[in-house]
Amino acid sequence: MTEVKVTVTRTEQHSEPIRVAVSTVILTLRRDDDGEPPRIALPLVRRTRAPHQDSWSLPGGWLRDDENLEDAAARTLHETTGLSPSYLEQLYAFGAVDRSPSRVVSIVYWALLRSDEVDAQSAAHMASGLAPENVQWFEAATLPTLAFDHNQIVDYAQWRLRNKVGYSRVAHGFLPPTFTLADLREAYEAILDRRLDPANFRRQVEASGTLLPTDQFRTGSHRPARLYRYDDAVELADRGPLATEEKRTR
Amino acid sequence: MTEVKVTVTRTEQHSEPIRVAVSTVILTLRRDDDGEPPRIALPLVRRTRAPHQDSWSLPGGWLRDDENLEDAAARTLHETTGLSPSYLEQLYAFGAVDRSPSRVVSIVYWALLRSDEVDAQSAAHMASGLAPENVQWFEAATLPTLAFDHNQIVDYAQWRLRNKVGYSRVAHGFLPPTFTLADLREAYEAILDRRLDPANFRRQVEASGTLLPTDQFRTGSHRPARLYRYDDAVELADRGPLATEEKRTR
Repeated sequence: MTEVKVTVTRTEQHSEPIRVAVSTVILTLRRDDDGEPPRIALPLVRRTRAPHQDSWSLPGGWLRDDENLEDAAARTLHETTGLSPSYLEQLYAFGAVDRSPSRVVSIVYWALLRSDEVDAQSAAHMASGLAPENVQWFEAATLPTLAFDHNQIVDYAQWRLRNKVGYSRVAHGFLPPTFTLADLREAYEAILDRRLDPANFRRQVEASGTLLPTDQFRTGSHRPARLYRYDDAVELADRGPLATEEKRTR
Repeated sequence: MTEVKVTVTRTEQHSEPIRVAVSTVILTLRRDDDGEPPRIALPLVRRTRAPHQDSWSLPGGWLRDDENLEDAAARTLHETTGLSPSYLEQLYAFGAVDRSPSRVVSIVYWALLRSDEVDAQSAAHMASGLAPENVQWFEAATLPTLAFDHNQIVDYAQWRLRNKVGYSRVAHGFLPPTFTLADLREAYEAILDRRLDPANFRRQVEASGTLLPTDQFRTGSHRPARLYRYDDAVELADRGPLATEEKRTR
């Protein structure tokens, strides 16, 4: 990047400029080939400069003065990982004085991505020749010590996810358009980090009225399982009045 | 304030510095002497300088480089209005490029205050001789056109309040420690902006198991009404892991 020297006259009592950054927490449900239940995973970027050089960190970067917050989050996420979720939701603004050697306020966005979307977008990124060697997916439950306050940010994202599951259909973000009740239960189990009784889960989901049965079944090594879909009449991410006001400008 | 000249070397492509501000939305339930149901109100500050000179705006100011976000929100709120809520919750970071003539990212906090707390704190502020002539309370439903995007911010705060009412006991923030079911229903009616059937409301609240009846009754012009209180075992504002991590430093 070009080095630009800027002279700023401030009328406040700032001894040091406060800078604004954006970061993103992208959560997916990853199923390994070990027969274990799926687990929540997220992409991290290895830092190539100080501070915290060589530590893993959330994808992100500086806010440009001509871009909106969500645009900046989408841009820096795509630049570093090749990922382009269909929506990003604002998680929180982290601004503790001591979170970085210099004063940085980070506006953090988050999204859920299906693992097939992750695979497709990552493959496209690799094919473009821009594949970053410094991006890697980690299980959320067993993260190393990350740069800055990023462990705390991931914890908060998981807390929000657990909370949302109770009153919205956030698990949908992890699942393809049609899925079995076992798929859905495994998503909830990964989010809540505990096992759920299959019969109770089926009763609760059916009573909620948010799922529509399809005429299709998944066949395989087990007995055929009916595929369900969510009722499209309800928005996946209800951001209220801001959903239209703050839409991306590009 | 003193004018300080700072020279900043930036490695990004910024042509203009991005500044960070904080604002607060303080909502209370105000009952006028007109016999009408209580209505949601909030304090606004008349701007004394450009941009938007003479327009009403949310209490707020610039983030200092040595204070945390919530500290800055609490400080600027107290400086302008004399109010000191026991907690502030982060509402959202507003950062659209065109929300101000210069580039400003505003981290907005919000809180609910009981009207008796408002009265006590405002009176103390007046007595201190620091009473601002430029602060006034407005009904949320009939706001004038505010400075910047502050109408949108108030709309968003009310949307969050309506949403929280459904799954938490946010109405508690408006009510004294003990209250009648009619008090509680009027708080919900003000938040949701619609009338609720008293008998249905009573059934739902009693079924929720969140209220504890006391042995006390309110007497007056109507028949005695039992006073209730919330079960203290549950937090009023559940901010999850951040509640302890981001507590105020002063």
